[in-house]
Amino acid sequence: MKILVLHGPNLNLLGTREPDKYGTFTLKEINDELNELAKELNVTIETYQSNIEGELVDKIQQAKNNFDGIVFNPAAYTHTSVALRDVLLAVELPCAEVHLSNLHKREEFRLKSMTAPACVGQICGFGKNSYMLGLRAIVNYLRNN
Amino acid sequence: MKILVLHGPNLNLLGTREPDKYGTFTLKEINDELNELAKELNVTIETYQSNIEGELVDKIQQAKNNFDGIVFNPAAYTHTSVALRDVLLAVELPCAEVHLSNLHKREEFRLKSMTAPACVGQICGFGKNSYMLGLRAIVNYLRNN
Amino acid sequence: MKILVLHGPNLNLLGTREPDKYGTFTLKEINDELNELAKELNVTIETYQSNIEGELVDKIQQAKNNFDGIVFNPAAYTHTSVALRDVLLAVELPCAEVHLSNLHKREEFRLKSMTAPACVGQICGFGKNSYMLGLRAIVNYLRNN
Amino acid sequence: MKILVLHGPNLNLLGTREPDKYGTFTLKEINDELNELAKELNVTIETYQSNIEGELVDKIQQAKNNFDGIVFNPAAYTHTSVALRDVLLAVELPCAEVHLSNLHKREEFRLKSMTAPACVGQICGFGKNSYMLGLRAIVNYLRNN
Amino acid sequence: MKILVLHGPNLNLLGTREPDKYGTFTLKEINDELNELAKELNVTIETYQSNIEGELVDKIQQAKNNFDGIVFNPAAYTHTSVALRDVLLAVELPCAEVHLSNLHKREEFRLKSMTAPACVGQICGFGKNSYMLGLRAIVNYLRNN
Amino acid sequence: MKILVLHGPNLNLLGTREPDKYGTFTLKEINDELNELAKELNVTIETYQSNIEGELVDKIQQAKNNFDGIVFNPAAYTHTSVALRDVLLAVELPCAEVHLSNLHKREEFRLKSMTAPACVGQICGFGKNSYMLGLRAIVNYLRNN
Amino acid sequence: MKILVLHGPNLNLLGTREPDKYGTFTLKEINDELNELAKELNVTIETYQSNIEGELVDKIQQAKNNFDGIVFNPAAYTHTSVALRDVLLAVELPCAEVHLSNLHKREEFRLKSMTAPACVGQICGFGKNSYMLGLRAIVNYLRNN
Amino acid sequence: MKILVLHGPNLNLLGTREPDKYGTFTLKEINDELNELAKELNVTIETYQSNIEGELVDKIQQAKNNFDGIVFNPAAYTHTSVALRDVLLAVELPCAEVHLSNLHKREEFRLKSMTAPACVGQICGFGKNSYMLGLRAIVNYLRNN
Amino acid sequence: MKILVLHGPNLNLLGTREPDKYGTFTLKEINDELNELAKELNVTIETYQSNIEGELVDKIQQAKNNFDGIVFNPAAYTHTSVALRDVLLAVELPCAEVHLSNLHKREEFRLKSMTAPACVGQICGFGKNSYMLGLRAIVNYLRNN
Amino acid sequence: MKILVLHGPNLNLLGTREPDKYGTFTLKEINDELNELAKELNVTIETYQSNIEGELVDKIQQAKNNFDGIVFNPAAYTHTSVALRDVLLAVELPCAEVHLSNLHKREEFRLKSMTAPACVGQICGFGKNSYMLGLRAIVNYLRNN
Amino acid sequence: MKILVLHGPNLNLLGTREPDKYGTFTLKEINDELNELAKELNVTIETYQSNIEGELVDKIQQAKNNFDGIVFNPAAYTHTSVALRDVLLAVELPCAEVHLSNLHKREEFRLKSMTAPACVGQICGFGKNSYMLGLRAIVNYLRNN
Amino acid sequence: MKILVLHGPNLNLLGTREPDKYGTFTLKEINDELNELAKELNVTIETYQSNIEGELVDKIQQAKNNFDGIVFNPAAYTHTSVALRDVLLAVELPCAEVHLSNLHKREEFRLKSMTAPACVGQICGFGKNSYMLGLRAIVNYLRNN
Repeated sequence: MKILVLHGPNLNLLGTREPDKYGTFTLKEINDELNELAKELNVTIETYQSNIEGELVDKIQQAKNNFDGIVFNPAAYTHTSVALRDVLLAVELPCAEVHLSNLHKREEFRLKSMTAPACVGQICGFGKNSYMLGLRAIVNYLRNN
Repeated sequence: MKILVLHGPNLNLLGTREPDKYGTFTLKEINDELNELAKELNVTIETYQSNIEGELVDKIQQAKNNFDGIVFNPAAYTHTSVALRDVLLAVELPCAEVHLSNLHKREEFRLKSMTAPACVGQICGFGKNSYMLGLRAIVNYLRNN
Repeated sequence: MKILVLHGPNLNLLGTREPDKYGTFTLKEINDELNELAKELNVTIETYQSNIEGELVDKIQQAKNNFDGIVFNPAAYTHTSVALRDVLLAVELPCAEVHLSNLHKREEFRLKSMTAPACVGQICGFGKNSYMLGLRAIVNYLRNN
Repeated sequence: MKILVLHGPNLNLLGTREPDKYGTFTLKEINDELNELAKELNVTIETYQSNIEGELVDKIQQAKNNFDGIVFNPAAYTHTSVALRDVLLAVELPCAEVHLSNLHKREEFRLKSMTAPACVGQICGFGKNSYMLGLRAIVNYLRNN
Repeated sequence: MKILVLHGPNLNLLGTREPDKYGTFTLKEINDELNELAKELNVTIETYQSNIEGELVDKIQQAKNNFDGIVFNPAAYTHTSVALRDVLLAVELPCAEVHLSNLHKREEFRLKSMTAPACVGQICGFGKNSYMLGLRAIVNYLRNN
Repeated sequence: MKILVLHGPNLNLLGTREPDKYGTFTLKEINDELNELAKELNVTIETYQSNIEGELVDKIQQAKNNFDGIVFNPAAYTHTSVALRDVLLAVELPCAEVHLSNLHKREEFRLKSMTAPACVGQICGFGKNSYMLGLRAIVNYLRNN
Repeated sequence: MKILVLHGPNLNLLGTREPDKYGTFTLKEINDELNELAKELNVTIETYQSNIEGELVDKIQQAKNNFDGIVFNPAAYTHTSVALRDVLLAVELPCAEVHLSNLHKREEFRLKSMTAPACVGQICGFGKNSYMLGLRAIVNYLRNN
Repeated sequence: MKILVLHGPNLNLLGTREPDKYGTFTLKEINDELNELAKELNVTIETYQSNIEGELVDKIQQAKNNFDGIVFNPAAYTHTSVALRDVLLAVELPCAEVHLSNLHKREEFRLKSMTAPACVGQICGFGKNSYMLGLRAIVNYLRNN
Repeated sequence: MKILVLHGPNLNLLGTREPDKYGTFTLKEINDELNELAKELNVTIETYQSNIEGELVDKIQQAKNNFDGIVFNPAAYTHTSVALRDVLLAVELPCAEVHLSNLHKREEFRLKSMTAPACVGQICGFGKNSYMLGLRAIVNYLRNN
Repeated sequence: MKILVLHGPNLNLLGTREPDKYGTFTLKEINDELNELAKELNVTIETYQSNIEGELVDKIQQAKNNFDGIVFNPAAYTHTSVALRDVLLAVELPCAEVHLSNLHKREEFRLKSMTAPACVGQICGFGKNSYMLGLRAIVNYLRNN
Repeated sequence: MKILVLHGPNLNLLGTREPDKYGTFTLKEINDELNELAKELNVTIETYQSNIEGELVDKIQQAKNNFDGIVFNPAAYTHTSVALRDVLLAVELPCAEVHLSNLHKREEFRLKSMTAPACVGQICGFGKNSYMLGLRAIVNYLRNN
Repeated sequence: MKILVLHGPNLNLLGTREPDKYGTFTLKEINDELNELAKELNVTIETYQSNIEGELVDKIQQAKNNFDGIVFNPAAYTHTSVALRDVLLAVELPCAEVHLSNLHKREEFRLKSMTAPACVGQICGFGKNSYMLGLRAIVNYLRNN
């Protein structure tokens, strides 16, 4: 079982970016922790980050025949990208949408997710643990469907 | 560490209620699975279900000195209850809001959660696994904060 | 054939409550007239009133195996109760929603019914006769479906 | 006692029009059933159908001195016709608005009725029985007011 | 100089229709008073009433080569008719929109006029005198432009 | 019979202000023409202009015992002044609201008039003739009520 | 193969009506050009224009057994007619909605089409060529479905 | 003179609940201070708190024949409860709505009160003194009406 | 302790202005009653009324060093004046906003107060007693903060 | 005459992507069919697909001096891209916007097109034939303007 | 070249008013700095402050023949004053609107400026330097147009 | 002191793009003029243009350690890019947002800026001078904070 972990725009800045809102851990630390959990769950993961909407679309298109599921933090594109919504519907891979912060506590416009209706479910607010929960969720989903 | 698991209105009907939307498992099966996971995580849980908004408010008030955290599926009250929002803010216990179905795929009015801004985070769409992820999330949160 | 007749909050005040809006008849008189009509239609009815949303949810849950249909005046809960909507969908009993007054002549917020989409149909504006029409409607529905 | 039964646009297509939504009965069958019920209730009815808003306005104007009440299915004009609302207010005949389908289950724009505030009440969702209930409602109303 | 005076739906009921809102005068009395004023102003008028939107459209189309201006009370169609708006723009005859009642004191939906942006101006609230002011306005407009 | 003619903010600039929108005539010319018409109608008028909302409120308060009616162009204050609405309701003098331009052809925010619901009626779009029509309207109103 | 071409209100004025917006060609010229194209495509067409909503409804009802498809410019009724939407759904004939002007460049209210959801597709903005494209579209659709 | 003082959901937590927002005083202290003021004003009071909407409805129903007026802090139910609004209208007892915090400084949804239109007036923002002002207000009202 | 009592536009008309809405008492009577209460509370008050928004701004600016608190009825300016809101924030004097009528029972636009978020709290609906309650509220506030 | 055919994000997936919504044909088949039609119409075309908004902007900028017109399916970017709207306005090349599916039958947000106001017209709903109609439309437009 | 610098309501309080939001400098210091810059730019300025909307209208009217341009901070009137918008359009003097604070970071209602569409441009957020930038902007504009 | 000047999508077309809206100067001319002013102000600048949202995000990320401030014209991305808003917040460099045209005079959707709340301030409407003012603003800001 092979899972693609996708990080959207500005997540490469983690650790330096508004640490009181996003925490002091770096993206590398998240990826390391994900790799450990993947071993424990007996799956393989690949991680990828991009600031460019179209590159994320490309990556999801290519995932179609190479991966069984996706853990995806679309970050800023969550709220605006019809293209990411459409590609998730097109490739038909089960996806868990994850967010570091609790979207329900922030600006009104962050409440509406364009991508979540194309995912199995959404997890938000648990810091870097949102990713770990997302990986567990998608592996569990794949093993039971 | 002691966690309160709260089930909101109509969740006692699980298994018989619109199985294509909510699955064929019963509330008892969820509680059993939660108990198993609790053991694995080395915590104690208590489960409670009510159809009455005010009884859920009462239960959360009483939780203040008896529990360390809450896993809460407010079900129908998610979208309307200012009282549940207020009591969660009042008792200041970390709470993980969970939902069986993916709210982003349903009626518009299910998008807005009155209770989520008073929680650590929200998990939705992973069927009964949403509860397991919620329990893991809140235990992880308590151990790291 | 057995029909549950449910009266929502404040309907126990009928006769004394704003008589120019709701009429001078009491809830007992409605129930008596319903019983007479039930005999004429050759069905049995049970009537129940509560001011508490969760008790109405409970009652509908219990109706599942004991009744064939419901005549329901959700009164004030019509416009706010997702829980009543959900339980009607869950028990899958045909229901006729009835209202004494014509909702289309009143405050804007009374136009939207949370429960009506979970019912067969809605009748409003004909005073206590709305109940009689509702009983006829649900009996006719059960005999033809 | 003389009642006018008015059918709005496209109701002459009943039986062939989207039978899963509107049923397989024809307008003639509704009218026949209404005539039978009229006899039982000891009243006279006249039925009329038109696709043209202004003709329906004309018909209601003429009803003023020839009828005691109206059973009206404004169909598509329900949601847009200020002219039909105004004429109902002008002639001051008691009217029961009826609809075959449950408007609360359909498109958002079908929720708002321009004509209902000018009627005694509204009945929707009970298929062709909505008409029978409407006739009973208006006769009952006339005999008690 | 020749002016067309157009009366929209239900205005033929004047005198009998909600007299406290619309006054006790009849349409004939308005037309008579308009004829008197026309003589005083040295112009010719023709009056026409219809309840059918399309007939009013036809009449305005035909006015193009036979009249110099229009006094128009679109009544109920004021708020919904794109067709009347379009025909007024098409024939390019100066038009004064008139209303018996003060639209600013009534339902919210009567505030928006579809036809007024296609007219020179609008007069409302002065009872049958609104027509007299409208005739004066359009004659004055034609003599000064 | 004595009529107060009130001009709101910036109307003293008429003639120089955006002549293609408001015409080339000056406020003095409007007042002169109004005086002539007043003589013809056998009434007395007084004219007053101010750019200050509170001064217009003062003037209307003082009008209470000195005038029989008001012709009022509130100009920019039409759309924002609750104070002018309240004072018109308070003094209970019949008022005709007039506007040079057709508000229905301009910005959306000019559609809503705060003052019109406190007036007998509104006239807009006929250039300086709107004032003459307004004077005729209020004199006619006073002579018939 | 037989196609009905329907022209909505005011289209009979083409050539004289706001030529900068709608062009200088007449309705007859459009119909002639459509006839030529019909021959080229080896189909028969019938053209019909009416200003009356209900007559258009009638025409579409009658088309049911006499035509294979419809090319329809509902003009002003596009944005308001639930009756035309309902009849298109009722007769289940494939329809191409066409508009001379680009609705996306005009007033906000012209963006929403009541009829388009009941059509195969919509073409707008290409002047009289919109009709030719519409005829090609519906013929192509009929030959491939 | 007998006044019912009603406390809505979560007010039993006062003193421990977000003290920077609601103050450090307890509900008992408010009730004590109210009793003292009641003596000074020469009236009797009874206090009651519940977290359950329907119990508050019940209490107000029972107040009808036992009390002369109500001081009511509906707390979270202020913004959602049609049932409380309806019961206040039904029992026709004069009521002063009170709130500890200034609703105008908080979330948008707290601005709209469902219950205030059924009360004599509303007092908010003065901490526990809001209750004392409410008691004075309702006593003054009863003595002058 | 010195309190400024400010009356906004049109309040000088009290007694003559719509007495069924505002009562038959005059502004002088309110001021007299306030002076009596001030003595009882052992404070000094000064009262001031103006119809001009900018004069009220000036008065509040000057209050900064001469008064300890404000009782303010902004009347019509409540709903529109950003300037009054800003000056209240600027001078940082505690203010009680008072209204004679219950704003929750009136037009929708009277619900939103621009000034209330800059005040300690708001009191409305108790007639002239609103002022007395406001004076008590602000004195109590000053003695306890 | 040279026409640029632009395909927006995810259109490279055609044939595999939700075939019931978008059909079973591939992008290559569309391009082949377009090339055939181009020969028949005696024009040259170039086709280009990208998932990246900025690359589409670049391509349109470069088209300025190399092409006479554009056929553009902006796909997901239709509803969000101000940049594509701006570049179409900037290069001033006539453009036909095309869509495979009927946008009027889908999610509300797909109704608003950011790019259509910068195009000559829009064609939607005719499957791959939308492209052929778009090519005909733009060639016809170029030959007649 | 002569420039009028206008300061709206409450700006005379600068230095004492919420210094963390508006800075500790006084209005006099801004005016002094503006005078220095004026000398450097070789222009003359006059400064004026008022809290009264109508006085600002008067001042702008008088500016017409005495000044070449305006630097204007409308402060609280920015968001509500149609009168100031109208007078700026009337006098046709180029104006730079300036604000001390960044309006985009504050309450939603401060986003909409009534006056900005009547100005050349708007500058906000740079503290007292906004005024200097505004003076440079308007001088540059006058020298290049 | 080193300032990054960023130009968003389509600004490379300046001079050829809708010159009546954007002027006839080219991007190079703006950059040249900025360089001259930079010398005068004794700072260094680097200029960069891209049509791709993600490349602009990348550039701002890299600016973090190489620049002291930013002058940014996000052009079309102003209104839609959450990613650019997030990166500006992340790098915490002071930024002046600039626009050639006056956004307050254009389409409604251009009023809302996603990026401005993450900037020090915004300047719009002064043509290419907006850039010069922006550079002065940010240099002044850096020297005083």
